[in-house]
Amino acid sequence: MPKRITQDIEPVAGNGLLHRRLFLKRGAAALGAGSLGLMTAARAKELPPWMQAPGRALSGYGSRSRFEGHVQRQPLSAKGTDGAGGSWTPLESLEGMITPNPLHFERHHSGIPDIDPNRHRLLIHGMVKRELFFDMDSLLRYPMVSRTQFIECSGNSYLAGLPAEPVNATCGALHGLVACSEWTGVPLSILLDEAGVDPAAAWILAEGADAAAMSRSVPLAKAMDDALLAIYQNGERLRPDNGYPLRLFLPGYEGNMSVKWLRRIKVAATPAMTRDETAKYSDLRPDGQALLFTFPMEVKSVITSPSPGLELAGPGLYQISGMAWSGLGRIARVEVSADRGATWAEAALSGPVLDKAVTRFRMAWRWDGSPSVIMSRATDETGAAQPAREALIAAKGRKFTYHYNGIQAWRIGSDGQAGNVYA
Amino acid sequence: MPKRITQDIEPVAGNGLLHRRLFLKRGAAALGAGSLGLMTAARAKELPPWMQAPGRALSGYGSRSRFEGHVQRQPLSAKGTDGAGGSWTPLESLEGMITPNPLHFERHHSGIPDIDPNRHRLLIHGMVKRELFFDMDSLLRYPMVSRTQFIECSGNSYLAGLPAEPVNATCGALHGLVACSEWTGVPLSILLDEAGVDPAAAWILAEGADAAAMSRSVPLAKAMDDALLAIYQNGERLRPDNGYPLRLFLPGYEGNMSVKWLRRIKVAATPAMTRDETAKYSDLRPDGQALLFTFPMEVKSVITSPSPGLELAGPGLYQISGMAWSGLGRIARVEVSADRGATWAEAALSGPVLDKAVTRFRMAWRWDGSPSVIMSRATDETGAAQPAREALIAAKGRKFTYHYNGIQAWRIGSDGQAGNVYA
Repeated sequence: MPKRITQDIEPVAGNGLLHRRLFLKRGAAALGAGSLGLMTAARAKELPPWMQAPGRALSGYGSRSRFEGHVQRQPLSAKGTDGAGGSWTPLESLEGMITPNPLHFERHHSGIPDIDPNRHRLLIHGMVKRELFFDMDSLLRYPMVSRTQFIECSGNSYLAGLPAEPVNATCGALHGLVACSEWTGVPLSILLDEAGVDPAAAWILAEGADAAAMSRSVPLAKAMDDALLAIYQNGERLRPDNGYPLRLFLPGYEGNMSVKWLRRIKVAATPAMTRDETAKYSDLRPDGQALLFTFPMEVKSVITSPSPGLELAGPGLYQISGMAWSGLGRIARVEVSADRGATWAEAALSGPVLDKAVTRFRMAWRWDGSPSVIMSRATDETGAAQPAREALIAAKGRKFTYHYNGIQAWRIGSDGQAGNVYA
Repeated sequence: MPKRITQDIEPVAGNGLLHRRLFLKRGAAALGAGSLGLMTAARAKELPPWMQAPGRALSGYGSRSRFEGHVQRQPLSAKGTDGAGGSWTPLESLEGMITPNPLHFERHHSGIPDIDPNRHRLLIHGMVKRELFFDMDSLLRYPMVSRTQFIECSGNSYLAGLPAEPVNATCGALHGLVACSEWTGVPLSILLDEAGVDPAAAWILAEGADAAAMSRSVPLAKAMDDALLAIYQNGERLRPDNGYPLRLFLPGYEGNMSVKWLRRIKVAATPAMTRDETAKYSDLRPDGQALLFTFPMEVKSVITSPSPGLELAGPGLYQISGMAWSGLGRIARVEVSADRGATWAEAALSGPVLDKAVTRFRMAWRWDGSPSVIMSRATDETGAAQPAREALIAAKGRKFTYHYNGIQAWRIGSDGQAGNVYA
């Protein structure tokens, strides 16, 4: 049995943040917060209705509790369409690192194609010795790898910090174009090796089988490095929302480049300069020039709880929980502040901390009931740190829309309600 | 770009098993298997119907492709009931490490209770200084941890090796009472600390809120070590099939002890000797004595592909893929044989290799089209190795039903069909 630690519990940062190690070893009572348990054991003797008759039957495919039906993505499509837009993952309702498949965000340009996997094909052509044309059965015979990694839309979090006034919405509505899954598939390098790539080639064009035939150019070096032809998502076959039956997956790169419903890869010497890397997915810099081909998603974090919509029930002990990720590698640390950035302390990271995956962080917080501002700041293994919102805008201007990774601050009112605030 | 390796590709074990590292670096063509790609690029110009009109709309909660509807658990209940039995996970249709929630196996004694989370309570009482009675909102405020670990029914795999003649069924139908998820919840030790456990206590009784009020005794040492009060399963709230809104989770221990729909924990000096640890979940040894309280699930592995129902399309190169796990810790290695156990070679393990989690293993196999027998054998970090079926039966007799972890052999006929075989 663990020995009791008898030293006093000192806060490690202002406004009640507690050392990440202490909270895990001692119950809330010892931390002076008072037991959260309600001492009404007599009530335990009442048998609830679900114990008074046999329950529901076994089944071939399970579903959520009806009490969880309110946990939904938030879909938003362009006017006049229902498939050009996105649906945001309700991050505030989730925990851990994995995003369950039905709640994985969407971002489509022409809706979701209903692809018959027996008819789907992948063509590899262009500057190669031999053209290859695969069906799914052939692809399934190749060696596969599995990696738990995030994917993030490059337009994620735009609403959280760029509008002139803070938009008050849930954590998911502001930051929910990010998700983390165990992706399993065939390394693209194996198939490119088989095709025999021309030494003069430097890019590939990846094209999808949606009505828009959405396509992006990808550097050949990335394709040969860790690009995956993903077939499985958290153990089962890909979801149509996320590319069934085959997608390109580029660890750490902006989501748009991980082309869904992949049908064609053309090896080339130069980028194709498609619509989705010129008119879209490009940013205007303050000097008036456009910034193209910004590939890796930068280090970012966000507190998912407490957050807007999750009300605190009065002063006391709470768990601050959030997500951190970086397209450059592993998360090195996450710091949390509960006094609007005056002081910071390191949060506990939930292991294993994986390369280009979401890392869950947690911190104990003794809230005294006064208005507070909580924030998180992630640093990745390259030393890159998440910038303050003002610093980011000073560097990149206000006309950019992509790759927003400024620090997110939530204000907590004395009524326990949280809201978006610029700090 | 990776350098081409020019040495000859030698098999590392009999009947065509290839070194695990080579397969990942070279395309199938270089391995002499011939390209699997079909060189009909002209066909790529045809636009399939799903590219000719906008696709389906964005949504709040996604679903699988209609083409994957056949992937189902296999439910089986006791005569006269529909909720006393199990549903087996279709392992042969899955990849990676994570089991998607809707396909997570079930094992119930009185069906699935429809629990209102706002009315559900957890009582902690018995040999404690203070009784505690929690609602879900209180539990959600405690510090949580996340761990990706397996759970396995102690009766799993019984059908695979104990009947007098091999039962021919799919991998999932034989071994599918195992699943692996990222579980997030509150360490039980935190709440037991808060309750103040009597030093004379040595056991807890855990009771669930199903109609059977299924209960098991658990050693206090395990409860204080890594027992979890699980609330989330792969990021979202638990499924009713798996214990919504709260279950006990005991890493590595037989599944029955991880009581679902947890409502009560009573701290005690001795085990309660409930029905489900005496009449059930106990084994008769050859000497006539009963073996009770066999907690950790032993090291086990199974090849999920090729396997019964997944037909091989003629001679050529294939990926052998499977799962390995151990209730004692991490998998150290998995060996594969393609010649009925005459020779063995080490498979590639998919990282990260986690404590008491499923580890995916893979191996390249050049099948020459002749009848073959493939097998896998796992060893865990304690040095424990999965036993051959005959050795296991010699040691434990034929009257035991629980904790069967003998090596699984699949015979592959010259027609490419696989079946269960004793080897």
